[in-house]
Amino acid sequence: MSHFNVQQKVLFQHCDPAGIVFYPRYFEMINAAVETWFEDGLGVSFAQLLGARGSGAPTVTINTSFQNPSHLGDLLAIDITVLKIGGASLDLEICAQSGGTKRFESTLTLVHINKETGRPNPWPDDLRDAINLLLKEAS
Amino acid sequence: MSHFNVQQKVLFQHCDPAGIVFYPRYFEMINAAVETWFEDGLGVSFAQLLGARGSGAPTVTINTSFQNPSHLGDLLAIDITVLKIGGASLDLEICAQSGGTKRFESTLTLVHINKETGRPNPWPDDLRDAINLLLKEAS
Amino acid sequence: MSHFNVQQKVLFQHCDPAGIVFYPRYFEMINAAVETWFEDGLGVSFAQLLGARGSGAPTVTINTSFQNPSHLGDLLAIDITVLKIGGASLDLEICAQSGGTKRFESTLTLVHINKETGRPNPWPDDLRDAINLLLKEAS
Amino acid sequence: MSHFNVQQKVLFQHCDPAGIVFYPRYFEMINAAVETWFEDGLGVSFAQLLGARGSGAPTVTINTSFQNPSHLGDLLAIDITVLKIGGASLDLEICAQSGGTKRFESTLTLVHINKETGRPNPWPDDLRDAINLLLKEAS
Repeated sequence: MSHFNVQQKVLFQHCDPAGIVFYPRYFEMINAAVETWFEDGLGVSFAQLLGARGSGAPTVTINTSFQNPSHLGDLLAIDITVLKIGGASLDLEICAQSGGTKRFESTLTLVHINKETGRPNPWPDDLRDAINLLLKEAS
Repeated sequence: MSHFNVQQKVLFQHCDPAGIVFYPRYFEMINAAVETWFEDGLGVSFAQLLGARGSGAPTVTINTSFQNPSHLGDLLAIDITVLKIGGASLDLEICAQSGGTKRFESTLTLVHINKETGRPNPWPDDLRDAINLLLKEAS
Repeated sequence: MSHFNVQQKVLFQHCDPAGIVFYPRYFEMINAAVETWFEDGLGVSFAQLLGARGSGAPTVTINTSFQNPSHLGDLLAIDITVLKIGGASLDLEICAQSGGTKRFESTLTLVHINKETGRPNPWPDDLRDAINLLLKEAS
Repeated sequence: MSHFNVQQKVLFQHCDPAGIVFYPRYFEMINAAVETWFEDGLGVSFAQLLGARGSGAPTVTINTSFQNPSHLGDLLAIDITVLKIGGASLDLEICAQSGGTKRFESTLTLVHINKETGRPNPWPDDLRDAINLLLKEAS
């Protein structure tokens, strides 16, 4: 399976005066899901990436549609699928659902960079291998 | 001109450990820009919309690319352009630049809803007229 | 034990350009810890409180000291202790530590209110009993 | 006058499902007010402080009471008063009001630090002089 799944409870801090998730908070959830996936799924934490490795993986494009609102207390299942890995890029699809309804769907591109220069840098072998393994298992 | 422009300073709270704007914060800026435009450009505040009018204007899709990072202290010029108004929908383009470089670009669709039901509701005449006036001036 | 404990990982979204937790994010963690305690420790979720019960429990005072900075990837142990329950008030102490060092310490007062009027409202029996049970176990 | 004043509109992003400001957002407003004061009132921006000067001014204690809720669209007048300057510390009082009612009041202590070591570092002369000038004008 090329999927990685995290659970995210909708907290008071995520909700707006309409009583539903304020959409910029979804992007914090997306970022946190990717962060958890790097550490638990790929074996390299953001702390290691930004620290010892002197690199980073900023999001350069993200396209999102919000299908249904999420309410305080909802438990979201956030699913990450690898679409494609390039030299220094990575295309992901992230889909969140709860109680049988889809909440949002994003496709995004990350780029692996050198933190000092901010320039794209090829994915290191361990991350590339871990990602390719997921793609292979999915095919 | 169909444009509306707001200035947004990049504050400490917007920046991440890499020293640049954490991208979910851009969506807060986008939401704040739209909110300011409704109040100052179209004449109806979000407080009126959600309060007395019992309506709302959630974002249903948003596609964004981040061209260049923004740093602490940068002054962003955030420009809103109306692309199209439908029965209950509104397509916008939002572009931010600073110091001559583009920072991010979004196209998004808002839908005017009845707050109680969450269902789409045609734009009221005053908002529709104000938006159409902008489109007319631009053509 | 009058204690309730939650674990909170320090995520990228919590950290500032100095690479440490931006202190307003600690207050989101505190609010989330109290929210988790209400649901898992006291048996009444914020969704129930704000929804069916038509009440709320806003924080009216909070005094905090930050002893040591927290870094990306730190796992915080956040401990809630009940200090005192009044008619409609509740005094708590919240202490966070990681790796053997204290990170922050807060004392705060919540007030149970009627959501409509915003006025203080005595704690309902089930919440009062659950809180008193914690206090009794601690003595 | 030892006062510095900033205006802060209550935006959609600040409000919770109860329709009032979510209190952690007040701390973002407080941090932004202090940041604006450093740049516009004292002549040294946070970008300069953290960048060229290699220093920082983290908040080490903050005690806050919330007197009245703030609603979407409220315009807050946030007032900063210098209470005392020490070798590397600075005690401030921050008070926010709107429409004739007090919203929150904070007393906080900042410490000027060396960014590398994280250790307290005496305030540089230009900042100390600018702060002392405010205190003198107030007496």
